[in-house]
Amino acid sequence: MRIALLGGTGDIGEGLTLRWGRDADHELLVGSRDPERARDRADGYTATLADRGVDADIKGFGNAMAADRADVVVLAVPAYHLVDTVESVADRLDADTVLVTPAVGMTRDDDGFSYNRPGAGSVAALAAEAAPDDVPLVGAFHNLPAGGLADLDGEFDWDTLVFGDDADAKATVADLAAEIEGLRPLDAGGLGNAAGVEAVTPLLINVAAENEGLHDLGVRFE
Amino acid sequence: MRIALLGGTGDIGEGLTLRWGRDADHELLVGSRDPERARDRADGYTATLADRGVDADIKGFGNAMAADRADVVVLAVPAYHLVDTVESVADRLDADTVLVTPAVGMTRDDDGFSYNRPGAGSVAALAAEAAPDDVPLVGAFHNLPAGGLADLDGEFDWDTLVFGDDADAKATVADLAAEIEGLRPLDAGGLGNAAGVEAVTPLLINVAAENEGLHDLGVRFE
Repeated sequence: MRIALLGGTGDIGEGLTLRWGRDADHELLVGSRDPERARDRADGYTATLADRGVDADIKGFGNAMAADRADVVVLAVPAYHLVDTVESVADRLDADTVLVTPAVGMTRDDDGFSYNRPGAGSVAALAAEAAPDDVPLVGAFHNLPAGGLADLDGEFDWDTLVFGDDADAKATVADLAAEIEGLRPLDAGGLGNAAGVEAVTPLLINVAAENEGLHDLGVRFE
Repeated sequence: MRIALLGGTGDIGEGLTLRWGRDADHELLVGSRDPERARDRADGYTATLADRGVDADIKGFGNAMAADRADVVVLAVPAYHLVDTVESVADRLDADTVLVTPAVGMTRDDDGFSYNRPGAGSVAALAAEAAPDDVPLVGAFHNLPAGGLADLDGEFDWDTLVFGDDADAKATVADLAAEIEGLRPLDAGGLGNAAGVEAVTPLLINVAAENEGLHDLGVRFE
């Protein structure tokens, strides 16, 4: 499968690329607004994996080119770039492309981080509005600490909640999640449940900040 | 220590009473608007524990009487009764009483449950507004499945997030939580972080509903 990671030069993009590069067998397309930067990072990820004896298929492209070639397009961009990014690649997407959002909007005050719920209901709902109507949108990979994900020396036992209104697209993403060692996909229902999933991320950051010895926290439902 | 569980005849009250009755050594005061019902339930909990060879100190009272006698008052009532309940016992509370809210407001639609965030910012903020100014309020025990908590045959390995603006009160509640076998208290910061904690409860219900084989879900941060 071809997986594009738009904004794949950033932290969550790095983690997903390295984990899929190591644990699965896909063509990974690192996307960036700057194709040169995308190629540099793709080379870096390839080298990181080669150091571990893994021969991964990772290439860098501009975001539109990466999206054009992919079966699954992960929007690994900050929430405030999400709509722009979807719009910039919209004409490269079709009903056979699965669009994936891990994006979460947060604000910070004296108490810590909190979920900044968009008027549309969720960050995922914003992405769905910006995408062509026939492109299925799935939410996943929200509640993974980027540092822990990108550190290939680290092991984890985390859940990722997968939501969306298209069952086939959701199953595709759940399968991709399950390929990452230590990651368990759980079904969180439809797009209407997105806010509840997105809101967990600032909570994880707060709990890590408030408790000595805890950092790079993920979550496990049991 | 004397712990009052207002609404202690309900499901989360039952679970906390049985667990503290079995795992700790406190005077447990089951409160209800109906004192007779409180006494019946207290006798029932006592009998359940006696069947397991545990001699617990559990008595039933009207809510006000229970609150009056307690060091810690747990508001084990539905969110829509929270303010009424606090107001009904307000003159029985003082600066030495720790008030604890596990309450979460939820709504339900076709997608599942979602967090019904009050205009005050959180359910805990509503309780804080209703309580006398000098009474410390702590949030805890939100994300525990009532059925799993009350089933003494069940074992678990769950976290409970504890928040509040009074460090001593928060420590008191964290210590009480840690006495329950399998429960780990984690600091979630101040009252301003309450919404993030409360919002996890509908998510747990949705995840349990959407995934075969999962039920009575708690959460673990790791």
